[in-house]
Amino acid sequence: MTKRTTEKQLMLFSGRAHPVLAEEVADLLGTKLTPTAAYDFANSEIYVRYEESVRGSDAFVIQSHTAPINQWLMEHLIMVDALKRASAKRITVVMPFWGYSRQDKKHRGREPISARLVADMFKTAGADRIISVDLHADQLQGYFDGPVDHLMALPLLTDYIKDKYGNQPLAVVSPDAGRIKVAERWAARLGGAPLAFIHKTRDINRPNETVANRVVGEVKDRICILTDDMIDTGGTIVKAADAIMAEGAAGVIICATHAILSDPAVDRLKNSTALEVVITNTLPVPEEKQFDKLTTLSIAPMLARAIREVFEDGSVTSMFDGHA
Amino acid sequence: MTKRTTEKQLMLFSGRAHPVLAEEVADLLGTKLTPTAAYDFANSEIYVRYEESVRGSDAFVIQSHTAPINQWLMEHLIMVDALKRASAKRITVVMPFWGYSRQDKKHRGREPISARLVADMFKTAGADRIISVDLHADQLQGYFDGPVDHLMALPLLTDYIKDKYGNQPLAVVSPDAGRIKVAERWAARLGGAPLAFIHKTRDINRPNETVANRVVGEVKDRICILTDDMIDTGGTIVKAADAIMAEGAAGVIICATHAILSDPAVDRLKNSTALEVVITNTLPVPEEKQFDKLTTLSIAPMLARAIREVFEDGSVTSMFDGHA
Amino acid sequence: MTKRTTEKQLMLFSGRAHPVLAEEVADLLGTKLTPTAAYDFANSEIYVRYEESVRGSDAFVIQSHTAPINQWLMEHLIMVDALKRASAKRITVVMPFWGYSRQDKKHRGREPISARLVADMFKTAGADRIISVDLHADQLQGYFDGPVDHLMALPLLTDYIKDKYGNQPLAVVSPDAGRIKVAERWAARLGGAPLAFIHKTRDINRPNETVANRVVGEVKDRICILTDDMIDTGGTIVKAADAIMAEGAAGVIICATHAILSDPAVDRLKNSTALEVVITNTLPVPEEKQFDKLTTLSIAPMLARAIREVFEDGSVTSMFDGHA
Amino acid sequence: MTKRTTEKQLMLFSGRAHPVLAEEVADLLGTKLTPTAAYDFANSEIYVRYEESVRGSDAFVIQSHTAPINQWLMEHLIMVDALKRASAKRITVVMPFWGYSRQDKKHRGREPISARLVADMFKTAGADRIISVDLHADQLQGYFDGPVDHLMALPLLTDYIKDKYGNQPLAVVSPDAGRIKVAERWAARLGGAPLAFIHKTRDINRPNETVANRVVGEVKDRICILTDDMIDTGGTIVKAADAIMAEGAAGVIICATHAILSDPAVDRLKNSTALEVVITNTLPVPEEKQFDKLTTLSIAPMLARAIREVFEDGSVTSMFDGHA
Amino acid sequence: MTKRTTEKQLMLFSGRAHPVLAEEVADLLGTKLTPTAAYDFANSEIYVRYEESVRGSDAFVIQSHTAPINQWLMEHLIMVDALKRASAKRITVVMPFWGYSRQDKKHRGREPISARLVADMFKTAGADRIISVDLHADQLQGYFDGPVDHLMALPLLTDYIKDKYGNQPLAVVSPDAGRIKVAERWAARLGGAPLAFIHKTRDINRPNETVANRVVGEVKDRICILTDDMIDTGGTIVKAADAIMAEGAAGVIICATHAILSDPAVDRLKNSTALEVVITNTLPVPEEKQFDKLTTLSIAPMLARAIREVFEDGSVTSMFDGHA
Amino acid sequence: MTKRTTEKQLMLFSGRAHPVLAEEVADLLGTKLTPTAAYDFANSEIYVRYEESVRGSDAFVIQSHTAPINQWLMEHLIMVDALKRASAKRITVVMPFWGYSRQDKKHRGREPISARLVADMFKTAGADRIISVDLHADQLQGYFDGPVDHLMALPLLTDYIKDKYGNQPLAVVSPDAGRIKVAERWAARLGGAPLAFIHKTRDINRPNETVANRVVGEVKDRICILTDDMIDTGGTIVKAADAIMAEGAAGVIICATHAILSDPAVDRLKNSTALEVVITNTLPVPEEKQFDKLTTLSIAPMLARAIREVFEDGSVTSMFDGHA
Repeated sequence: MTKRTTEKQLMLFSGRAHPVLAEEVADLLGTKLTPTAAYDFANSEIYVRYEESVRGSDAFVIQSHTAPINQWLMEHLIMVDALKRASAKRITVVMPFWGYSRQDKKHRGREPISARLVADMFKTAGADRIISVDLHADQLQGYFDGPVDHLMALPLLTDYIKDKYGNQPLAVVSPDAGRIKVAERWAARLGGAPLAFIHKTRDINRPNETVANRVVGEVKDRICILTDDMIDTGGTIVKAADAIMAEGAAGVIICATHAILSDPAVDRLKNSTALEVVITNTLPVPEEKQFDKLTTLSIAPMLARAIREVFEDGSVTSMFDGHA
Repeated sequence: MTKRTTEKQLMLFSGRAHPVLAEEVADLLGTKLTPTAAYDFANSEIYVRYEESVRGSDAFVIQSHTAPINQWLMEHLIMVDALKRASAKRITVVMPFWGYSRQDKKHRGREPISARLVADMFKTAGADRIISVDLHADQLQGYFDGPVDHLMALPLLTDYIKDKYGNQPLAVVSPDAGRIKVAERWAARLGGAPLAFIHKTRDINRPNETVANRVVGEVKDRICILTDDMIDTGGTIVKAADAIMAEGAAGVIICATHAILSDPAVDRLKNSTALEVVITNTLPVPEEKQFDKLTTLSIAPMLARAIREVFEDGSVTSMFDGHA
Repeated sequence: MTKRTTEKQLMLFSGRAHPVLAEEVADLLGTKLTPTAAYDFANSEIYVRYEESVRGSDAFVIQSHTAPINQWLMEHLIMVDALKRASAKRITVVMPFWGYSRQDKKHRGREPISARLVADMFKTAGADRIISVDLHADQLQGYFDGPVDHLMALPLLTDYIKDKYGNQPLAVVSPDAGRIKVAERWAARLGGAPLAFIHKTRDINRPNETVANRVVGEVKDRICILTDDMIDTGGTIVKAADAIMAEGAAGVIICATHAILSDPAVDRLKNSTALEVVITNTLPVPEEKQFDKLTTLSIAPMLARAIREVFEDGSVTSMFDGHA
Repeated sequence: MTKRTTEKQLMLFSGRAHPVLAEEVADLLGTKLTPTAAYDFANSEIYVRYEESVRGSDAFVIQSHTAPINQWLMEHLIMVDALKRASAKRITVVMPFWGYSRQDKKHRGREPISARLVADMFKTAGADRIISVDLHADQLQGYFDGPVDHLMALPLLTDYIKDKYGNQPLAVVSPDAGRIKVAERWAARLGGAPLAFIHKTRDINRPNETVANRVVGEVKDRICILTDDMIDTGGTIVKAADAIMAEGAAGVIICATHAILSDPAVDRLKNSTALEVVITNTLPVPEEKQFDKLTTLSIAPMLARAIREVFEDGSVTSMFDGHA
Repeated sequence: MTKRTTEKQLMLFSGRAHPVLAEEVADLLGTKLTPTAAYDFANSEIYVRYEESVRGSDAFVIQSHTAPINQWLMEHLIMVDALKRASAKRITVVMPFWGYSRQDKKHRGREPISARLVADMFKTAGADRIISVDLHADQLQGYFDGPVDHLMALPLLTDYIKDKYGNQPLAVVSPDAGRIKVAERWAARLGGAPLAFIHKTRDINRPNETVANRVVGEVKDRICILTDDMIDTGGTIVKAADAIMAEGAAGVIICATHAILSDPAVDRLKNSTALEVVITNTLPVPEEKQFDKLTTLSIAPMLARAIREVFEDGSVTSMFDGHA
Repeated sequence: MTKRTTEKQLMLFSGRAHPVLAEEVADLLGTKLTPTAAYDFANSEIYVRYEESVRGSDAFVIQSHTAPINQWLMEHLIMVDALKRASAKRITVVMPFWGYSRQDKKHRGREPISARLVADMFKTAGADRIISVDLHADQLQGYFDGPVDHLMALPLLTDYIKDKYGNQPLAVVSPDAGRIKVAERWAARLGGAPLAFIHKTRDINRPNETVANRVVGEVKDRICILTDDMIDTGGTIVKAADAIMAEGAAGVIICATHAILSDPAVDRLKNSTALEVVITNTLPVPEEKQFDKLTTLSIAPMLARAIREVFEDGSVTSMFDGHA
């Protein structure tokens, strides 16, 4: 027979960076990760091979760009190349955290724009689409020549905050003047909570040093939600928490989507004045980095839902309509 | 003879949007604009032809993306196509204002990213490089697959302010929370002037309406430099000026690189509380839009210097080293 | 469920240049245009957003490249970009008139080839296919790197002529030596009507001036069908009509697919010796350009049929088989 | 109706180089070759046109790259171009023998890499995938930017040998040191038959001349399977057969996938010491090149099966699982 | 030393199709063709290697696309690939006759557009520019994504005609209605000679057959220059000559740039009523195709001059300024 | 002045993988490495910035793809991106060892072809050319769409062997049947030394296990040069050495270009029967991996010479002409 109805098959693939997240996504979609052989050769080159036919599949390749980031990025690229050469019909790169997203411009001359390079390398390898969460700058969507589904962890995080702290007076605080816009979205979802931010002032004689973190806005006697897109070494955010508490806040809750938690972030957070640190699992947090006041919300339901909508040609935009 | 020393020839081209600026650049470079026939056919299609050989030239094509922007953008693209097909060796697009730069992300689902589209269309037409001034977001550099020289009008504008108002107490004010970072750079160049910004608050019951423009920061008795990258219809910035004056400022100076000045910007600015409006000529301001307190600084010396450095393989990065 | 039968959904989109035509096409296809927000910002930049999910759709984007052509062309490109980024599965550009199609070669050195640039820009924006009507030169099909369905209005126009004038002796006249081939196709469809053309002769001493329009061929006592692909300012065709009448023709019917009708075309045609001017609505003719002897045939049924065949993988080539 | 279930239609196309093979494949798939007009113009340009609609088809274009190879290669490319422009949905190039596959590296400076050029030209013309048999080097898979299904004639050939000669002591001999790896695969499939190869030694004083073909390995009293990927002029392989017989072999069977058989291959083989020459029909062997001891096995079932798996999104990799 | 003045070296390369022309060009440029090994393997694959370093050269690769055209086209492509891989700095394809130029549109559905394919294949192989003579349609310039220098043999041919026949009354005749535009250019260069053309009429009952070649225009007692871009089998043009003579012309001179001369062109021309057949050597005319009344003008000076202008960044457009 | 003689400037850049080699190359070229800031962020992302203008430079970027290979590969790519965006005129990637070169084909279905992916990623980042040494397969040259200068360490290594062991009877041994061709080149350069190789035989009942390493060829009483392109974990080559010694060889010298030396290579080599291990420094060998019988020859002079030839448009092919 030379005529057939076209069918499509959703297949999920996971790199080795954060398999727990990928498995959770698979469970939510009622499927399994495609069995994949992946290991490092003695000289650290990565080998990948799929153990089942992927021909004609609608492939979703999940990898978290965590440290060692170049290794996992390269594995992600190699996985896409293997899918292309094995005749997957469409390849969607799922990168909950977009590696190198902070190098999204030349801060000074003769720097790379690595975030664009990452987008282009995935295109070169064979990616058709990207799904990512809370981009460092919205402009990154424009770095990929194709559709980018930009998911936002905001509803997930704010729902948690509302449930737990909604009966107390709240404020939303941005740790940096440059990210007040995000704080505004938080404030809107938290019923119009007042907004504040940390203003770093510098001594004219020592311009490269921040001499003070001044809190601008109403924080006194309020539970302050200190929010950023990511926590890397945690220095800025922990100092911000201190400054807020010094202004008489009732407490500080640190919230961020991407928990990079490079050293010494964990020590800083553990010993900080913050009451709770709320993150998602876009990046893996290993056992030894867990600590008491750390709360991790799973991004898996959001990823699973986005994958399903993409597979079924539904609207990802509509995903959050019920929340706003 | 079949062996020759390679020479290169700088050639300047101008579209019809803002010839005065292009001529000023040519004068500063000690050259002439290449004679170019350009006109509209009866059905509004654009015709372009160069009246001298451009073969092997190092071509710089200047066009301001002013209204009617689609016409001038298309003319710019057609000029690049004609250069490519006439064997120019290298084509640098000089767009002092990058058209559609505000559509640099999907604010909501199913929007275009027109700023990337513009970059890609210039690449398609044959552009090798871009020179632009004060991009709406630094990330736009990454939208073009090639070198982008990103010039900043900051030294030009702050030098003027320092000369004229430097002996009075100053403050730098951002009209919007999202652009405080730029204001910080201004403050640094103005000797550590204090920073303020306008915080728009909304009524919870009418979330789409700004109910108040609250000034955050010290403005009382100071000359306030209210600064943005562009002035379009002028509504936001004029309201900001009012709010600053209401807080007891000694005066407001509005500064912006790109003077789009769509209606009713001129009326608003003319009648505003601002003492002076300082802009550059990245975009043309026609006679009928001139008004008394408008001061226009020429961006031409900066463009000329950048073009010369590009032509001579000098460092554009170093252009501002003496200023910081 | 991770396995599904693939479905496809035809979605129609219209720019703002000629919505009446798009709506007529939609009606014929038994569907609606997808609701789309589109407007100009104050500085003339265009904003577009689709108000329904387009994910996975088989999208057809209709826009007439009428004046102001650069605006509508840019809107068309932006619409394609938005569809690409919103995950449309296939994007077909429907441009009944291909803008800049007359700039399809370098008439002299250092001109652009804008017709190719237009094709490349649509490719860059994300277009997979093009549907167009009566290209100025057949070679334009080769300018796009992908399928181009080239529809011909010939059957539509000749059927009308046969119905109305078929009982009288006819002749087909080309207004220009370069387009006799088209007139030959007309003659064939009109039952072998004789062919004539206008030969422009020039005075050797004034080579840039046409001094006479000589009619070559039999026109006397015949209803002459004077045919061209487009009418722009109408100068050539109206002079041709006069020349034909001077040779004793029984009457002249002007026929053209694309009614650009730039000024002063309407005045010329209205006051011409032609009995009737027959056009199609590939381009909009506004109320004020209508006149008594103008007859407009709708191209919509042809576009609708082509879209349906493309959607259903039928043969567009076969569309006209019954007519020849 | 604007919603439909997607169907797909397998369509087979054949160039003029080896229609018998293509027809055999069509028969095995239970379909017909799509009627195609193809001929040479007087000046040797090739004309191709499909006589049925191919819109939306899953197209497989079969052509054998036999002499005159440039003609058939160009026809193959033109056929792909015509499919792309006629809206085939997916285009798979079936080239049982990859033309120019031996020019897969620069043996010396300033040579082309024609095998890569061939891959790139098919990509440019519009090919999505390639199916080929027994590539000269496995690395050629990497020359095409897309999926390459690399079929191996090994099971076909070894099954034949096992059936006919399996009850005698066998050896596998490589005619060249550089191709021992292939001989190893043969040996493995022939139940661990011993391996030998021909070592060409050179006289130090005349380095460009092979002075002796020394057989390394056990061949005495064995039926020796002398195996290579292709037979071009047959010089090397016939000399190898002689050398093997001189070492006391019981007989030599020459086996190769691609029977190029350029002159004087047929004479050499006919008059050689080999008992039988076993080939496949990846390339046509015309009547006048047939000879008694030539046995041709058909590659058509393997091609048909691969095409079916590709069409049905099955696994080509699994095709040979039962054989190993 | 790590700083040097850049030099460039013109290098000329010739394929095997028409070495005499290439050598003539080399002589005129005062240089030699770069020694090149080029031959066919037994299976008709082409091998090419340059015998001198081409690194950094400004390379011009000359090949005439004559029969067997697919062989010479492929050799041309392979030569470009080898230059690219050997680090030539710029590669200009010199194809005096653009192969497949007549397949420049889909005359009917499901045809290729081979002329575009040829342009794309050269781009893929590595060509930066094209130089060609008298394109079949001017639109072909737009098929290549880069500069195309389109030379015209018109001055060469008309100068010859003026010298030899200028003292007699002339007429210019087009053999086909579709090419009258070219005849108009001839007429202009011949001092305003009158224009005529051959109108093919068809019997309504036998539409595929031309029943008559009617001459339209003044030819009586004139030397008629019957002009076309190419002569392939010569059928059309020889019949046209007969028709002209039958109308009382004083004589017919057949002129064409590209002398394809496929069988039976030579017999037809030799035995025709034409007094002289004037061609150029864009394509080789072998000894056995020479005949008494054939005059061949060399295109080499024009090619040499264009190559020099390209090398020296002069204006090719200006080449003919003295002639018009 | 708008006209200048073009100059070019050679600039050398080094990643952090093997700076000693890059410095040696710089010294040989009489220049310095361009000062470059490069470090890892806390989350392992790499930051790179050039501290001098690179505008218009002829840039050579040296990086050894050693472990951790993904880190150094990514750094290499980022360096190329930064050069492209900073307007380097030409970018040559110098990778003495091509990372992932062994994954140059799909050994089994659904594997990537990572060696091609590496080539494509460098192209995407902006590389114009590649210089590499002793590719694992010559076909890799064809993986890059541009010039690849493929240097061979053979003269360097064989000159050393001839000097030190030339007065003793030698043999060249390949450790694997698949690499005998390389051994043949060695034998030719060593004055026609006899050739041998190791034949791995397998037990039919345990096909995945090598049961014996049989030496084929004359090794008795000879100094055997055991040669391969790389030594990774050293298992194969050390067993080969044992087998050779067991056959009565006078001694074994292990030679390889690329000393990957993954664990436990050093232990194996140190304790092996080999007299000496001769390598080059294409990859760094840290202090702790040095051992007594290891001899390292520097590849720097060869790289320096190639870079100079490329910069000066000389012939890299001719580099070895004096040696053969």
